[in-house]
Amino acid sequence: MRAARYYGNKDIRIEDIDAPTAGPGEVLIDVAWCGICGTDLHEYLDGPIFCPTPETPHPLSGESAPITLGHEFSGTVAALGEGVDDLEVGDHVVVEPYIIDDAVDVGPDSHDYHLSKDMNFIGLAGRGGGLAEQIAVRRRWVHRIDKAIPLDRAALIEPLTVGYHAVERSGAKAGDVALVGGAGPIGLLTSAVLKALGVTVIISELSELRRQKAIDAGVVDHALNPKEVDVSARVHELTGGKGADVAFECTSVQIVLDTLMDALRPTGVLVVVSIWGKKANFDMHKLVMKEIDLRGTIGYVNNHPQSIALVNEGKVDLAPFITGKIGLEHLVDEGFETLIHRNETAVKILVSPSGAGL
Amino acid sequence: MRAARYYGNKDIRIEDIDAPTAGPGEVLIDVAWCGICGTDLHEYLDGPIFCPTPETPHPLSGESAPITLGHEFSGTVAALGEGVDDLEVGDHVVVEPYIIDDAVDVGPDSHDYHLSKDMNFIGLAGRGGGLAEQIAVRRRWVHRIDKAIPLDRAALIEPLTVGYHAVERSGAKAGDVALVGGAGPIGLLTSAVLKALGVTVIISELSELRRQKAIDAGVVDHALNPKEVDVSARVHELTGGKGADVAFECTSVQIVLDTLMDALRPTGVLVVVSIWGKKANFDMHKLVMKEIDLRGTIGYVNNHPQSIALVNEGKVDLAPFITGKIGLEHLVDEGFETLIHRNETAVKILVSPSGAGL
Repeated sequence: MRAARYYGNKDIRIEDIDAPTAGPGEVLIDVAWCGICGTDLHEYLDGPIFCPTPETPHPLSGESAPITLGHEFSGTVAALGEGVDDLEVGDHVVVEPYIIDDAVDVGPDSHDYHLSKDMNFIGLAGRGGGLAEQIAVRRRWVHRIDKAIPLDRAALIEPLTVGYHAVERSGAKAGDVALVGGAGPIGLLTSAVLKALGVTVIISELSELRRQKAIDAGVVDHALNPKEVDVSARVHELTGGKGADVAFECTSVQIVLDTLMDALRPTGVLVVVSIWGKKANFDMHKLVMKEIDLRGTIGYVNNHPQSIALVNEGKVDLAPFITGKIGLEHLVDEGFETLIHRNETAVKILVSPSGAGL
Repeated sequence: MRAARYYGNKDIRIEDIDAPTAGPGEVLIDVAWCGICGTDLHEYLDGPIFCPTPETPHPLSGESAPITLGHEFSGTVAALGEGVDDLEVGDHVVVEPYIIDDAVDVGPDSHDYHLSKDMNFIGLAGRGGGLAEQIAVRRRWVHRIDKAIPLDRAALIEPLTVGYHAVERSGAKAGDVALVGGAGPIGLLTSAVLKALGVTVIISELSELRRQKAIDAGVVDHALNPKEVDVSARVHELTGGKGADVAFECTSVQIVLDTLMDALRPTGVLVVVSIWGKKANFDMHKLVMKEIDLRGTIGYVNNHPQSIALVNEGKVDLAPFITGKIGLEHLVDEGFETLIHRNETAVKILVSPSGAGL
């Protein structure tokens, strides 16, 4: 089968590899669509970061580069491994793409399996990836979805769930006011979750195209341009002087962090959703004097059922965020290059590994 | 009456001023003991910080330097103003030393009156202070204590309540393991509250004398010297590899912050209790990848009844933290100078404004 494989920095190759089979407890999936994630770009431009190298294979997968890429995907069940009896061939599914130590409790009551030692991701550190025609995944990480959800939109359930978990970390509730810093895919999908929960959403974003996308998608109430508006002052104005209840840092940019700290009300919560490659210059005194909670969030933990429910119930419409569809052979020249050089116009580019649906 | 008045940087004068009277809704208190706080030292060495200057009088008190100092005090009710009928002359009391806008809800259900606009402190921004023979305080801020609590120990209820609120902010519960960075007065009193609640307490402190004080006072289970021990490694060892559940930053020192971040378990909570005069160089990526909660805390909010109960019930013994008693005339030469130059041997120095009890 065809697969996109990461060999190293700026070295991704589309190759023919052996198709997987469903081992005991596994589900073989025909991949329908796989999104390109910022993490994939990061791995391409600055990596290897998550991807293990031959000198240090991943301790759980045992694999190292070349690694099949892709962790945001949807598909159809092609075969069931021994012992899997609660799915059927033809079911539509998405994958929670974790590689986690067998010794860790990954049951429905766990709230921290995603933080366990050596945690990594399918499609970054081994066990196949969504940028291939097929993948075999352990039953635990496969989530069945309603066949009414088109499979292209379903490929966005993974990043939506990142947003869901970020919102869960914030404690935001209906009636609250949220300020989201940055209208990239994660900022937009976090906004979509907030909006679905009845939160008023203000987004701050430099790009006019992205602000417009946020408004057109119906996931924000206000889209502010921080070059033109004093965001903190405007948020206070919009909240009767109080400030935002919660904020989401989705840029890893210092001035955005500072703005969110200013715009929050006392006892407000700031969730950091972005990956910071450098230390922040953090105003600890402001955290203290306003009793702010600064909370980290990464991935998701038992959140897929909830985010899938939001899509099933029509509370989140993922269609507006699909801005391109390409075949696997154009992953780098059309996919990565668009996101790197014409990032403003693209939100989520989907790849069809088999070419079906294009 | 005699009072210690702050005129400006390194200019504190012991003077005769008019004694206050109990206006409507006020309680006149004969001050028994008043502790010297780090904030007082900071005001003396680096101020004015909290203390308003004649150019910008405090918007609520209307006062400016000279200001009577002292906000950690105990005393006896000397007179009751009109309308105060739930206290008696002779009652022992402590004060929650807030200056807060009359428009703010300061009722028992408020959790944020201490974060309201223009909040400041009695003894720093006006309305008298505990470093004087008498003070008149609004009934709302006066808390009656059991006469069985010696008044010298009662003067430590104010900083104990800072610790109580910090622990409340952390969500620590019996059975948890806490790491406290710094065994100054606030680190020790925070430890005392943690210990009273059934939390295992590990303290990290450079000074041998302070480590010994923490052990002798019975408020910690382990006292680590960060010059000799890898604190994070030791905490992981003591917790079966897990890491601390909660941590308290009581030093405003960068390396202590970093150590606490390392020593925490995933989803752990780090409470910043100290006042940072500079920005922190903060490892946002660690916050994200461990899903740490970093929480600011300042003062207290409806916490005096709870901290007083801990003392009443004998769960916290404040006696070990009283390391000196002086008269008002020695406030600077014996009090401040000891804390500035021989800080290691002193925890809390109490001042008797009237000289009684010395």
